[in-house]
Amino acid sequence: MAKYLIKGCAVIPISGPVIENGAIAISDDRLEYVGSLAELPPDWQQQETIAAADMIALPGLVNSHTHAGMTLLRSYADDLPLQQWLEEKIWPREDQLEREDIYWGTKLALLEMIRSGTTTFADMYFHMDSVAEAVVAAGLRASLSQGLIGLQDDSKERLATGISLVKEWQGAGDGRITTMLGPHAPYTCTPQYLQKVVDAAAALNVGLHIHLAETQEEVANVSKLYGATPVVLVDQLGLFELPVLAAHCVHLTSEEIAILALKKVGVAHCPESNLKLASGVAPVPAMLAAGVRVAIGTDSAASNNNLDMVAEMRTAALLAKGVSTDPTTVPASQALTMATLHGAMALGLDREIGTLEAGKKADLILIKRRQPHLMPCHDLEANLVYAARGSDVDTVIVNGKILMAGGDFKTLDAEKIYAEVDKRIKKFYN
Amino acid sequence: MAKYLIKGCAVIPISGPVIENGAIAISDDRLEYVGSLAELPPDWQQQETIAAADMIALPGLVNSHTHAGMTLLRSYADDLPLQQWLEEKIWPREDQLEREDIYWGTKLALLEMIRSGTTTFADMYFHMDSVAEAVVAAGLRASLSQGLIGLQDDSKERLATGISLVKEWQGAGDGRITTMLGPHAPYTCTPQYLQKVVDAAAALNVGLHIHLAETQEEVANVSKLYGATPVVLVDQLGLFELPVLAAHCVHLTSEEIAILALKKVGVAHCPESNLKLASGVAPVPAMLAAGVRVAIGTDSAASNNNLDMVAEMRTAALLAKGVSTDPTTVPASQALTMATLHGAMALGLDREIGTLEAGKKADLILIKRRQPHLMPCHDLEANLVYAARGSDVDTVIVNGKILMAGGDFKTLDAEKIYAEVDKRIKKFYN
Repeated sequence: MAKYLIKGCAVIPISGPVIENGAIAISDDRLEYVGSLAELPPDWQQQETIAAADMIALPGLVNSHTHAGMTLLRSYADDLPLQQWLEEKIWPREDQLEREDIYWGTKLALLEMIRSGTTTFADMYFHMDSVAEAVVAAGLRASLSQGLIGLQDDSKERLATGISLVKEWQGAGDGRITTMLGPHAPYTCTPQYLQKVVDAAAALNVGLHIHLAETQEEVANVSKLYGATPVVLVDQLGLFELPVLAAHCVHLTSEEIAILALKKVGVAHCPESNLKLASGVAPVPAMLAAGVRVAIGTDSAASNNNLDMVAEMRTAALLAKGVSTDPTTVPASQALTMATLHGAMALGLDREIGTLEAGKKADLILIKRRQPHLMPCHDLEANLVYAARGSDVDTVIVNGKILMAGGDFKTLDAEKIYAEVDKRIKKFYN
Repeated sequence: MAKYLIKGCAVIPISGPVIENGAIAISDDRLEYVGSLAELPPDWQQQETIAAADMIALPGLVNSHTHAGMTLLRSYADDLPLQQWLEEKIWPREDQLEREDIYWGTKLALLEMIRSGTTTFADMYFHMDSVAEAVVAAGLRASLSQGLIGLQDDSKERLATGISLVKEWQGAGDGRITTMLGPHAPYTCTPQYLQKVVDAAAALNVGLHIHLAETQEEVANVSKLYGATPVVLVDQLGLFELPVLAAHCVHLTSEEIAILALKKVGVAHCPESNLKLASGVAPVPAMLAAGVRVAIGTDSAASNNNLDMVAEMRTAALLAKGVSTDPTTVPASQALTMATLHGAMALGLDREIGTLEAGKKADLILIKRRQPHLMPCHDLEANLVYAARGSDVDTVIVNGKILMAGGDFKTLDAEKIYAEVDKRIKKFYN
């Protein structure tokens, strides 16, 4: 049983005030003590000490919506209208992707996530068993769902694949893997299909990961087809009786915001993808005011184009202020909560992760504070949200295991991943 | 005379298409050759070779609007309404700043700028002779102006100080320092004062650096006081007959956009500061369509809170798309041009810098491309704008001199700067 002591760091526990000159004791996969170094129980014995006087410790960041395998398509198609981007560029390439491609594309995504402080992510894509395999090897935590399109002939087989993922992978990797069913969106699944998925999820006792209200076009089309806006429609279909992780939620009425709050839906706010694809700006201050659990996600590297949650947290805070014309909205501490605890809530994992508290899983990151862009430090939280970068992350620990230390990867071979990725994207140019 | 050959890098010259497997030959302070390695003149002899096979070379970034000394106030006050932020937090601390404080605050800013690839910046603050001294020592290029407030009793002395800066520092540091006069804004300078400044600038043969149309409140107040909106007012006062660098330009009529284009005003677009202070979103696509020279600036670290031009370029591109609801606006190549050539134009330096072309000054940066978040690389420009970070900058060269190599500073002592900064901010807490 590994026992670590992280010593002398500032701690942002999220669950309470900032602790200067703190200590974090880890025993196996759990946090045993989080507090001031002075008050560390005198009988605590560690096997290894991590000197962290110039570090900030905070809960690992939770990327609440991504498609990791799409990292193969980073910078493949940009600055295009959404339909052209999808139909001419993304879909034809996705049709070429085989299981091994997604495995290596995901490994590249995991490398980037670890490097920039993400410890947990929610992923929806296909060949998800390859994603699960990569996550188990890399040591991250993830909530995985097979993306389900319910308009084509093979929709039944797709649901069966999604169910298999749950049955085979739920709890794998010492509990680091959890699963959901992933009905893609109300415009790609018929109401009948959505109901089948809800029934299956209820029987499996898992939640749902879905795209909702991403574009105005989606809202218009769904309303026209089914006489209800996306959020109202899926509520009527019973989705929100289960735990739901809803990505985007850009175009909402105040009635829909009230539904999301009442039904405790986890919203994955993806500000950079929404800006880049010109989908719009989600009403984050209104959602937060209504009590919606707004988490933060990057979406895929094909529409972001990175998986850097530090940058995403910053964009979320700045954009909310600018668009609402209220500089007090989404203050730094709120943005940090969104990127950690709200992410954990949205993935149904807040009993285990999302804050640094004794008894929770040891998922945390250490950030180097003595750098030009983080000096001086009048306010730790403001510096983290408004000035830090993903590259400032020094150490990443998940489930009590060190995945990166001093910027060095412990579970993944970067050069091997680059070589495999370079080999696999050649097919796009044939 | 130092002669370098940068060998094997991809080159984004801005003035032409991307060059793969390129070469850049530098002789003393000038670029002697920029092109493919295969076509390098066979008689070229370097003293030193910089192996750059995994690097991207581009012109040094131009930060077109900042207040470097305010870096002492990074994270001192955030998430506040503008007037409270200024009156209760920023102004009382600025009253405490002495010449040496601004010198060390500026040195910290220069450290951060070099680390993240900025080679030239436009600065308006006070005790600007200390800024000039720091810039000469650090090796950067800068356009400096003393901020002139024209409402108080000392406005005449302030103008005299601004004039002295021009007379004493124009052309210093082997020509790296240029100067302007810096009338702060139409709401802090009377029309009479602005005219005096214009006359002085014309006599000195320098341009003007001014804040224009940053907030709706400013537009309303200026319109009420003087019967004209800020841009129209300063045009009527003759400012635009001289070269003008206008920061912000958030709230503009189409008539004002036409004036900015016609008079070749350089606009310093500061998207992150404008978002953070909730000032609004500048009409960048409309300005670009009208032919306005839109450059990019960070504003100060008190309102940004960093000086990272890579991040600022990204925010400029994403925000323009999201707010205009047009994903094709400000494509990656446009954002790169704004952050380099347009910056050089806005500072009146485009004959010397802003592109990589033989004959221009050797101001350039090298960016590491083999990193998780920059792989794969289907498109170099998209990767730089949408996925890169300031920390990806490996090497910085200004005026043919290496200021940073492999991330190591060659002209500044980071630990000395941190120690001085920590010492000097103590007074804020007395």
